[in-house]
Amino acid sequence: MIVEEIDLRSDTVTLPKPQMIEAIANATLGDDIMGEDSTVNELERKAANLLGMEDAMLVLSGTMANQIAIMGFSTRGQEIILGSESHIYNLEGAAISALSQVQARPIQVENGYFDPEIVESSISLGDIQRAKTALISLENTYNLNLGQIVTLENMKEIQEVAKQYRLPVYLDGARIFNASVELGVEPSEFCKYVDAAQFCLTKGLGCPLGSILVGSKEFIKEAKINRQRLGGGMRQAGIIAAPGIYALENMIDRLKEDNDKAKQLAEKLASIEGLFINLKDVQTNIISVTINQSGMDADKLINDLKEKRIKVKKIGPRKIRMIVHYLITNDQLDYVVSTFRELLRERDKERYYEHHPSSPIGCINQ
Amino acid sequence: MIVEEIDLRSDTVTLPKPQMIEAIANATLGDDIMGEDSTVNELERKAANLLGMEDAMLVLSGTMANQIAIMGFSTRGQEIILGSESHIYNLEGAAISALSQVQARPIQVENGYFDPEIVESSISLGDIQRAKTALISLENTYNLNLGQIVTLENMKEIQEVAKQYRLPVYLDGARIFNASVELGVEPSEFCKYVDAAQFCLTKGLGCPLGSILVGSKEFIKEAKINRQRLGGGMRQAGIIAAPGIYALENMIDRLKEDNDKAKQLAEKLASIEGLFINLKDVQTNIISVTINQSGMDADKLINDLKEKRIKVKKIGPRKIRMIVHYLITNDQLDYVVSTFRELLRERDKERYYEHHPSSPIGCINQ
Amino acid sequence: MIVEEIDLRSDTVTLPKPQMIEAIANATLGDDIMGEDSTVNELERKAANLLGMEDAMLVLSGTMANQIAIMGFSTRGQEIILGSESHIYNLEGAAISALSQVQARPIQVENGYFDPEIVESSISLGDIQRAKTALISLENTYNLNLGQIVTLENMKEIQEVAKQYRLPVYLDGARIFNASVELGVEPSEFCKYVDAAQFCLTKGLGCPLGSILVGSKEFIKEAKINRQRLGGGMRQAGIIAAPGIYALENMIDRLKEDNDKAKQLAEKLASIEGLFINLKDVQTNIISVTINQSGMDADKLINDLKEKRIKVKKIGPRKIRMIVHYLITNDQLDYVVSTFRELLRERDKERYYEHHPSSPIGCINQ
Amino acid sequence: MIVEEIDLRSDTVTLPKPQMIEAIANATLGDDIMGEDSTVNELERKAANLLGMEDAMLVLSGTMANQIAIMGFSTRGQEIILGSESHIYNLEGAAISALSQVQARPIQVENGYFDPEIVESSISLGDIQRAKTALISLENTYNLNLGQIVTLENMKEIQEVAKQYRLPVYLDGARIFNASVELGVEPSEFCKYVDAAQFCLTKGLGCPLGSILVGSKEFIKEAKINRQRLGGGMRQAGIIAAPGIYALENMIDRLKEDNDKAKQLAEKLASIEGLFINLKDVQTNIISVTINQSGMDADKLINDLKEKRIKVKKIGPRKIRMIVHYLITNDQLDYVVSTFRELLRERDKERYYEHHPSSPIGCINQ
Repeated sequence: MIVEEIDLRSDTVTLPKPQMIEAIANATLGDDIMGEDSTVNELERKAANLLGMEDAMLVLSGTMANQIAIMGFSTRGQEIILGSESHIYNLEGAAISALSQVQARPIQVENGYFDPEIVESSISLGDIQRAKTALISLENTYNLNLGQIVTLENMKEIQEVAKQYRLPVYLDGARIFNASVELGVEPSEFCKYVDAAQFCLTKGLGCPLGSILVGSKEFIKEAKINRQRLGGGMRQAGIIAAPGIYALENMIDRLKEDNDKAKQLAEKLASIEGLFINLKDVQTNIISVTINQSGMDADKLINDLKEKRIKVKKIGPRKIRMIVHYLITNDQLDYVVSTFRELLRERDKERYYEHHPSSPIGCINQ
Repeated sequence: MIVEEIDLRSDTVTLPKPQMIEAIANATLGDDIMGEDSTVNELERKAANLLGMEDAMLVLSGTMANQIAIMGFSTRGQEIILGSESHIYNLEGAAISALSQVQARPIQVENGYFDPEIVESSISLGDIQRAKTALISLENTYNLNLGQIVTLENMKEIQEVAKQYRLPVYLDGARIFNASVELGVEPSEFCKYVDAAQFCLTKGLGCPLGSILVGSKEFIKEAKINRQRLGGGMRQAGIIAAPGIYALENMIDRLKEDNDKAKQLAEKLASIEGLFINLKDVQTNIISVTINQSGMDADKLINDLKEKRIKVKKIGPRKIRMIVHYLITNDQLDYVVSTFRELLRERDKERYYEHHPSSPIGCINQ
Repeated sequence: MIVEEIDLRSDTVTLPKPQMIEAIANATLGDDIMGEDSTVNELERKAANLLGMEDAMLVLSGTMANQIAIMGFSTRGQEIILGSESHIYNLEGAAISALSQVQARPIQVENGYFDPEIVESSISLGDIQRAKTALISLENTYNLNLGQIVTLENMKEIQEVAKQYRLPVYLDGARIFNASVELGVEPSEFCKYVDAAQFCLTKGLGCPLGSILVGSKEFIKEAKINRQRLGGGMRQAGIIAAPGIYALENMIDRLKEDNDKAKQLAEKLASIEGLFINLKDVQTNIISVTINQSGMDADKLINDLKEKRIKVKKIGPRKIRMIVHYLITNDQLDYVVSTFRELLRERDKERYYEHHPSSPIGCINQ
Repeated sequence: MIVEEIDLRSDTVTLPKPQMIEAIANATLGDDIMGEDSTVNELERKAANLLGMEDAMLVLSGTMANQIAIMGFSTRGQEIILGSESHIYNLEGAAISALSQVQARPIQVENGYFDPEIVESSISLGDIQRAKTALISLENTYNLNLGQIVTLENMKEIQEVAKQYRLPVYLDGARIFNASVELGVEPSEFCKYVDAAQFCLTKGLGCPLGSILVGSKEFIKEAKINRQRLGGGMRQAGIIAAPGIYALENMIDRLKEDNDKAKQLAEKLASIEGLFINLKDVQTNIISVTINQSGMDADKLINDLKEKRIKVKKIGPRKIRMIVHYLITNDQLDYVVSTFRELLRERDKERYYEHHPSSPIGCINQ
């Protein structure tokens, strides 16, 4: 049996569904910089409605959406409060400083909880020496190696702190739908507590490209100028928008399956000796695994898995990450579990022989 | 007879050909941030070959390509020499200063000629007060309202100046193929005189999205980091690349037709009283028209044309611009000419009655 | 008896000694932007020698020195590792991001110890998404509310980590001489472990203005360009340099007195009920005091002290800071202690009456 | 007779008068970052009054004043209209782009006249591609190699254009007093037409350091934050302010002498064969001289003059500049003229022998 490649490195590897490609073929196109791509316009309307915000704008990526939001909410020399494990802080090339000249004020976020006291104590009203806080930037799901859910209650708490200091709140909701389906609430519920937000059409939703930035009409108006300056203005962007419309209509609810599969996979892997997974961290579709077996580390395990046509991502010398998405079947997950079990067991066997060369074959039992 | 809309505002309004949509449908996709979209990889190889450069990178837009190039060739507080009518200086939201912290040193470029003496006198080696020149940035075709050709000889002259001061030269070649087909030289000829260049897959080539940045392997490697920081990193970018491959193979040579049609259109319009066109400026597919008739101005003419289903672009109180592209047929051009003639004549008629209300009908002849 | 004002808010309030003013009057001046102020040149030579570095440059302030160093060691979009309580991160208006487009990577520094493991784990070699670390920025004495000494051993450890990753190390040594006199080592010992450093002529050294940036000849050459760009280029700067020369010759060794007085003051204050001071934190001339008495807080205490002509600085709702400097005499410190004692006792008395209104006068003793 | 060095390179080489040094010695000092240096406060009050503006702030240099003003009037990605020969554009290290992320829109300014039509046509209201104009930046006297006066009428014209587009106007008045004494108008007259301005205490006024930025209270409040971020915050800045107070009271009116001397010098030099001076350009204390003699150029002349203990500045291969200031006496100017005459004549002589080696001595006639 030839095993198809099972790619668990990220949900960014998802391929568009045939219906998405069909949508591209049928899309009415126009020059979006002139506001004339009706497919883009339709997607933006749908997205604004879905998120309960005034307006929306299609952009190429989540990073671009995030950076445009930072630009819109700040002026040079200010500060952004954000989680120390957030994507904006760690995986966007220091863009908040490079492109917007603002300083990061990272805070610890334990278990996806943005502690309002920590947030409040990080706020600066600005004085002659201290940079003024411009924005509180949330992320939900939080931590791209964990995918933790920030609860609506927590978001409300942060909004209350923000209001007290007249600060805007932004939500990097790259995977917000993984949270909404898990909590069983409308996506728009999250946006009640923020001034602007973005979500990705790629990742779990399966589109080839694109993210959506939502906010007030005025915010989006300025966002279009900043998008253009970044080189993010698009001509016939309907080819990106068409799959997005399909995704909003068909791909959100099914994310619950990904979350469920991730939990099942996590539970099974957690039972394997030599692997450690904090199961309460597995709240959506992301699993971080610590390798706890002498002789095995991330590089070795990734390599062994690759030979078995399974791809996972290294996130530390002894840590790997897996993200479940719509291309991953139950059968594949079974294969993944059995492969891990086999590789970890073999590892023990190898180790055994290394250290006990005289042991008779067959005597190993663990 | 219902006249279809004739959109001459820009060649950015071009729609993808059916073959391009088909190419999207058949494209093999992957995660391009991980370098795994084979369609993108193929396009980049083809583009590098075509331009005779070591490496290439697909980006969303010409603006993004330009800004990434500026970033790659400069550090904060330096200067860029560029044409005072260049796109980078005028239509990219001051991005060279906003994103790269470099100062523009605009120079006059008459008739598409970058005078080597002017360029040289604009170079600064830098001292304690003067910012150092980082880059000479050319544009070919030059001036998005004229589309003038910068000759190979001129580009060579500039390269020689640049070499003397060890400066890199960049080419914003958004419409470089309009120049190459007109001169009858290979596109790679232009790149002999520069360190990096970009061209657009949209505009005359008809793709929905995308531009290509070419340069050395090292330059492109750093460019990928800067692209990511701008939010220009892409997942399944094959849907942008697939039409690009088609365009490189099928859409370049035919640009000569656009250039030829533009010249024909310009000649005919120039013969209309009340319109002024400098015919020697019409070197490729762009026509700038000055309105020289009392009672008529750009706003009025654009509005009148719109009623006749012709769209042109205002570029001054009495100036409009037209760009010819592959969707424009000869019949349409005939209709455009006759409509202009009619509107300008009617204008005279209206004026006549305004000023000579007693003139008998039918006596007007011009 | 009229008590002179005792200003313990900071050592930045120090006034120049008469000898410094005399030095100004006698200084040979010139245009320093042209390198022709011989007094500046002399100070810079002396400073470079004292710190054991190749070259030195006078700047207006510590903040300017720090920011010029950041500029010199980084390019846009990189990261700086620094202590979370460092001056550069907290009290320079986010300038590293505003002026140099670099992102802060703050780390916890406990008791003035830069943990090499934490530093190492914060280093990024840079990839397509992660910003590259440009610099490790130390501060000695560390934390402007504590003045903790970073040991030579610790600095060496950090240098070793830095070397491994070919990273430069910078020292914000605004109060480095308070550390050197305390450890009894030459100031140049600290500079063995860094690529560049700055110290302040103001603060404990008593000069009206100025800081000195030291580093390699090449580093200082570029620093002069960045200083000029910031508007820090100076004409007859000898009036700043002349007191600096006096300070280097006469004001360093005596800093030990300030440190000693601070410790004595801290011990005495620590014995007062309602005040908490971590005595092992008082390593140089800075004392942070936590107010631990109901009914008393920082605002109230500062106000009460002010009425007694003592000035201290608020650094939290229940926290104040005092810095000892050369204008503070032993008699003044006795007065400070007795005043604190009195105010805290009265506080108890007031509270007593509030809560026990019937208590007979005179019965209170605690 | 030993000739003292005559330094005409710039008025920045002026040394403080003894009364200025005395003023330093007698100044009451304090921590200016805390707003407690009463000498600084006095200077700022006097300067605000003199210029007729609400508030004033002492800064280290004209460059710093200019850059703080740019920061105050702009946000990233905007444009500044300024003269193509202005100091801000040419001699501040591209700081408007490096520190404020704004793009220069330089315009030609002929004979110190900012043409309102050119200014207006350079204004951009901003759109999705075009950067919005943030500020019109004037300079008076204009062009540091000419010192041309911008008339009050011209400044009023520009203000009217600016008001129409709700744009602020800034005045780099580094040498504004040279204009005011020449026109015989109060310095405050110029400030009627601008929102903020700066002038230098150095240069003609003779102070060792310092410039003053004036504007509204709100503008100066933000300026203090930006000054601090640049490292321009000062401790006992009274040592800079004290000479400034003296200068405002005693050094302004006498600038007329410098202007007059410059004109006299220019007239005399203009009569020397081989030198060309546009006399109508010599409006204040600056003289630009073109060398028009074969065999002589700027380097040679500067060197020859240096041997005669006269220093002038090279501003082109065949161009030098001289600035008259209060240290230059009438006797010195006579010596300068005779030296120029001698050097240019000798030059002819040398040339004569080169080309006519057989000519008898004494036959030279020119």
